[in-house]
Amino acid sequence: MAVTLDQAQPDFEARFAALLGAKREASPDVEATVRDIIARVRAEGDAALVDYTRRFDGGDLAALGIAVSKDDIARAHQEADPATVDALKFARDRIRSHHERQMPRDDRYVDAAGVELGSRWTAIEAVGLYVPGGTASYPSSVLMNAIPAAVAGVERIVIVVPAARGVINPLVLVAADLAGVTEIYRVGGAQAVAALAYGTETIRPVAKIVGPGNAYVAAAKRQVFGTVGIDMIAGPSEVLVVADRDNDPEWIAADLLAQAEHDVSAQSILMTDDAGFARQVEAAVERQLKSLGRAETAAASWRDFGAIILVDDLFAATPLVDRIAAEHLELAVADAEGLLARIRNAGAVFLGRHTPEVIGDYVGGSNHVLPTARSARFSSGLSVLDFVKRTSVLKLGPEQLRALAPAAIALARAEGLDAHGRSVSIRLNM
Amino acid sequence: MAVTLDQAQPDFEARFAALLGAKREASPDVEATVRDIIARVRAEGDAALVDYTRRFDGGDLAALGIAVSKDDIARAHQEADPATVDALKFARDRIRSHHERQMPRDDRYVDAAGVELGSRWTAIEAVGLYVPGGTASYPSSVLMNAIPAAVAGVERIVIVVPAARGVINPLVLVAADLAGVTEIYRVGGAQAVAALAYGTETIRPVAKIVGPGNAYVAAAKRQVFGTVGIDMIAGPSEVLVVADRDNDPEWIAADLLAQAEHDVSAQSILMTDDAGFARQVEAAVERQLKSLGRAETAAASWRDFGAIILVDDLFAATPLVDRIAAEHLELAVADAEGLLARIRNAGAVFLGRHTPEVIGDYVGGSNHVLPTARSARFSSGLSVLDFVKRTSVLKLGPEQLRALAPAAIALARAEGLDAHGRSVSIRLNM
Repeated sequence: MAVTLDQAQPDFEARFAALLGAKREASPDVEATVRDIIARVRAEGDAALVDYTRRFDGGDLAALGIAVSKDDIARAHQEADPATVDALKFARDRIRSHHERQMPRDDRYVDAAGVELGSRWTAIEAVGLYVPGGTASYPSSVLMNAIPAAVAGVERIVIVVPAARGVINPLVLVAADLAGVTEIYRVGGAQAVAALAYGTETIRPVAKIVGPGNAYVAAAKRQVFGTVGIDMIAGPSEVLVVADRDNDPEWIAADLLAQAEHDVSAQSILMTDDAGFARQVEAAVERQLKSLGRAETAAASWRDFGAIILVDDLFAATPLVDRIAAEHLELAVADAEGLLARIRNAGAVFLGRHTPEVIGDYVGGSNHVLPTARSARFSSGLSVLDFVKRTSVLKLGPEQLRALAPAAIALARAEGLDAHGRSVSIRLNM
Repeated sequence: MAVTLDQAQPDFEARFAALLGAKREASPDVEATVRDIIARVRAEGDAALVDYTRRFDGGDLAALGIAVSKDDIARAHQEADPATVDALKFARDRIRSHHERQMPRDDRYVDAAGVELGSRWTAIEAVGLYVPGGTASYPSSVLMNAIPAAVAGVERIVIVVPAARGVINPLVLVAADLAGVTEIYRVGGAQAVAALAYGTETIRPVAKIVGPGNAYVAAAKRQVFGTVGIDMIAGPSEVLVVADRDNDPEWIAADLLAQAEHDVSAQSILMTDDAGFARQVEAAVERQLKSLGRAETAAASWRDFGAIILVDDLFAATPLVDRIAAEHLELAVADAEGLLARIRNAGAVFLGRHTPEVIGDYVGGSNHVLPTARSARFSSGLSVLDFVKRTSVLKLGPEQLRALAPAAIALARAEGLDAHGRSVSIRLNM
């Protein structure tokens, strides 16, 4: 049973702040362990990967090989259910079309002073993509991480995935192949992150590492940050559904549970202006829970982190929506566009009654790797921009240098940097 | 005296790799100290800031106030040299014009299936800008960090700057005022980062923290990452000058020294195809060093980290340029555009013989906050994009939902997520 917060009650602000501040995940202190793992992979290379994999994943990489072979991928294609492969292709094509629109354009221009300025975008040469093992080994996530890299023009798209007792979900291999992944290695954990950052005999280093993982993976990414680039540290998933009374409570309950079934730390929040509707949704959640394969997970998430927020007016409540800064935001109201116009912080917004968030997880075309834990206040979902970088370009002729020199020399003097001033002034005696 | 690496020698690759791998900065382990400082600022707020500032900076904030007042800023304008203020305004206007072109545009479209997709950009609500104290307290850096935030539309642009014995460089205050900074606090170090991330009685929290700092500041930014966004961790500055024999050796020497005078850990590299020219530049460096105010710093940088790379052919050497991935790259050659077209990794490129890197430090218009320590392989200089975030938008009607549903349901089934499937299928009985 989720908590209910009522804006009409005097303790609302305190309870709302507590909801925002609640930690949904323990962060075990694995810093020292991870530091040791990284140091050993740097020192011993492949041998360390073989040893850690035997200990943590129960796989014998010395026999299986660290690299997944072309034959392994061909076999995965044969093993996979054809209808699922078709669905992956359908998703792949939609995701690719959308992300192609994100490619930034170079800019080059001459300003009024005759100075040429420019921004030039180029793809990162090599990126590593961490794919979790076990039940969190989602083929859809492989598409979502790899396709933007492929669209950006990254040449080496490298997957690392832990293989419990040597086994990898064949759909992960198929999705990787469909998305344009160029190398796959059966290693996981901090050791895989270390291999991507520093390289081993088998795995050449990459320049950036993206993708979700457990506490060890997150700590490893934090530690190698600087040597390579990393994406945001992903937290447990969350949804905020803003719904008026004109929704079918069963639909809204299904959306809340779709989030809750991910993880016991996931969070589903309903915001509505109708207490009766809220009670109907709650009842529907309890009913639908009974028939879910992952009922235990979903029930724990709903019980521990689920919330219902009762507000006077959905349009007046947008400051609360911005404070929550949800990863996923459904606007199941009559004037969804009008509500969207007032909102600032959200990873992805799903408009209207026929856009369940799940469509965005798979086939909408937009990316499902989104900022969690209120980080939509300052960051964005994964996109092509995460796989390119910008070089600025400046070009002056003698005349432009003369025009800009006095201000540059004055500022160099003010900052006490003689050689800066000389580097400009020495070119003026022409 | 810088080292010389000659591509014609058999040990070149080993020596080049060693140059790339050399650490130019000690990274003292300040993690635990910083953790304590952050915890205390969270627990005690302003009182902790007052205490740490007395101990580390020798200033009495209880008397002075944590916040810089409007009167303080007015006084700084009076104290500042008018010619320098004019130069700051000249720089401000050029930086603003260039950054206005970086503002990303919203995208909203309907695809062939009738699905509406979009990307919507909004400014981050509040950002903190760390400004170092002492000799590294550069007014030009204040412009470079604050102007992109102002162009992005950030409402609260907050500066923290340590005030040794209570004193702040008046030009820093003037630059902040010219750039559109809205709040300034006289605190520095890890305690300032903690205050920005978590807030105190006086300082409201921000959503993102940018700007360079010492090891304590860098460690604090790493630790608060997730609670707030951060920019890259900046390392010591560097320049790679690619120059043919047709340059004036004195000009090139001045450019190398402009970088070297920043810091003993700065790095200046000359790449040329003419050994005789290299010797002339070396001699010019030694000569020019004698007349520099910061001769000792520049000499140490040039001696410890300076390098001359002799190559057969500048156009064939671009793979080396990409491996160096310099923060600043000068192309002082006849066909600078042709050379640029072959290069992938650099923070900023300065084309031709009349574009010394120093112009980019101050008045070119492009940003001088650039990726250091080879991180131009995977990251970009500071821009308006660092102060906005993107929300993706998805909108389906009943017909689009029916078209996309089968693939979404198939993938949900393959991933074992029942509630995901139901969230879609429940909407199909219409």
